[in-house]
Amino acid sequence: MKESRYFYVPDAVNQTELPMEEALHALRVLRLQSGDEMFLMDGKGTFYRAEVTIAATKRCMYKIKETLPQEKSWRGYIHLVIAPTKMMDRIEWMAEKATEIGFDEISFLNCKFSERKAMRIVRLDKIIVSAVKQSRKPWKPILTPMVSFKDFINQPRTGHKFITHCYPEIYRKDLFTELQQLNDDEPVTILIGPEGDFSLDEVLQAEEKGYQSVTLGKSRLRTETAGMMAVCMAQLSLHK
Amino acid sequence: MKESRYFYVPDAVNQTELPMEEALHALRVLRLQSGDEMFLMDGKGTFYRAEVTIAATKRCMYKIKETLPQEKSWRGYIHLVIAPTKMMDRIEWMAEKATEIGFDEISFLNCKFSERKAMRIVRLDKIIVSAVKQSRKPWKPILTPMVSFKDFINQPRTGHKFITHCYPEIYRKDLFTELQQLNDDEPVTILIGPEGDFSLDEVLQAEEKGYQSVTLGKSRLRTETAGMMAVCMAQLSLHK
Repeated sequence: MKESRYFYVPDAVNQTELPMEEALHALRVLRLQSGDEMFLMDGKGTFYRAEVTIAATKRCMYKIKETLPQEKSWRGYIHLVIAPTKMMDRIEWMAEKATEIGFDEISFLNCKFSERKAMRIVRLDKIIVSAVKQSRKPWKPILTPMVSFKDFINQPRTGHKFITHCYPEIYRKDLFTELQQLNDDEPVTILIGPEGDFSLDEVLQAEEKGYQSVTLGKSRLRTETAGMMAVCMAQLSLHK
Repeated sequence: MKESRYFYVPDAVNQTELPMEEALHALRVLRLQSGDEMFLMDGKGTFYRAEVTIAATKRCMYKIKETLPQEKSWRGYIHLVIAPTKMMDRIEWMAEKATEIGFDEISFLNCKFSERKAMRIVRLDKIIVSAVKQSRKPWKPILTPMVSFKDFINQPRTGHKFITHCYPEIYRKDLFTELQQLNDDEPVTILIGPEGDFSLDEVLQAEEKGYQSVTLGKSRLRTETAGMMAVCMAQLSLHK
């Protein structure tokens, strides 16, 4: 039973009540009652052991009993930057899987060959929250709305920056080999293009801004698979 | 246009006609005509360059112009053995992603804590064929129907055998570290349990049969994510 008693409460320490959706789950599905134990996750690195103080029809009040700061299980900061697929469900499952595997931020790009030029991130945020709870991740990945490719690469950004693409005429290193050689705590930013890849011009612009051209290996991967594979590679290279 | 002119024809060299479904795609979607070039994949390591000889309403005859034997891009034989999830769509996407990333065989287990005790593999086979074509894999992964856990581990099996599980009381090595140390061409078999994990008894039985207990890392992964992560790890370790 205890297994599912984890609730996402972004500002848990300053609140005394579960957000509505969490409260409904606590009361109607788990049937928690006054005096029951539960765990709160603030998505910013801390879990809290709490006790239900009042369980009303739609409201669930709590009192924090213990603060449980968590430790991050990987070095650096894994930032996936991807052009969303035409079909949103493909990006949704990727976001779910990347959250389970472990990463820090996802941003979306509007590229020259993007098939999807706009997206709503509310649903995606819910999917990420659900995966955070299910996989007990102390940090909720940050979700950044879509910007144009140009705007993104022009943002000042420190750390290791990579752009994956399929142009054989441009020298590309192997991403996994590069990631395995990193031994600092600097952020890692990985750009993944749309179904039709980045344009050659976009790749050259990124290189000018300090992004290294890389390949994900010999396999021909769909956009969402590439995104997930990049997160796997980063996680396998940077985990403590 | 050429991009999508790949067709799966299991016995291509002994046939002269595309299977019905492939023919409909060739004729109605791609509108191929007599004299057009196309590529056939036999799923057993060979591509063929062929020419359409007759394009009728529902039938597409061909003549092979060139035999293109492919090389395998990873060592050994990656065999994923998994208890299917309650929701089939989760296993379906995993099979699609594992095919893109690259593996050799998927088998299904009926375990003590399995939520799904039966499954149809026809639809799953179609998803795999589609991913094989999309990612241009020369070898189609083999799909083996479900057997009981006991029957599976009692089958004679050579090579490196691993069982993933979440029992902290049983010593577990790190799967990725183990895979990276392999330097032979022996098959690799990885067992992934159901949502409720293997039973302790199942783990002990597997160990008796030579399976090594392993962990996929610190993350709490869903069954299908664990399966995909295992394939990623094997691919990153065994690729040529």
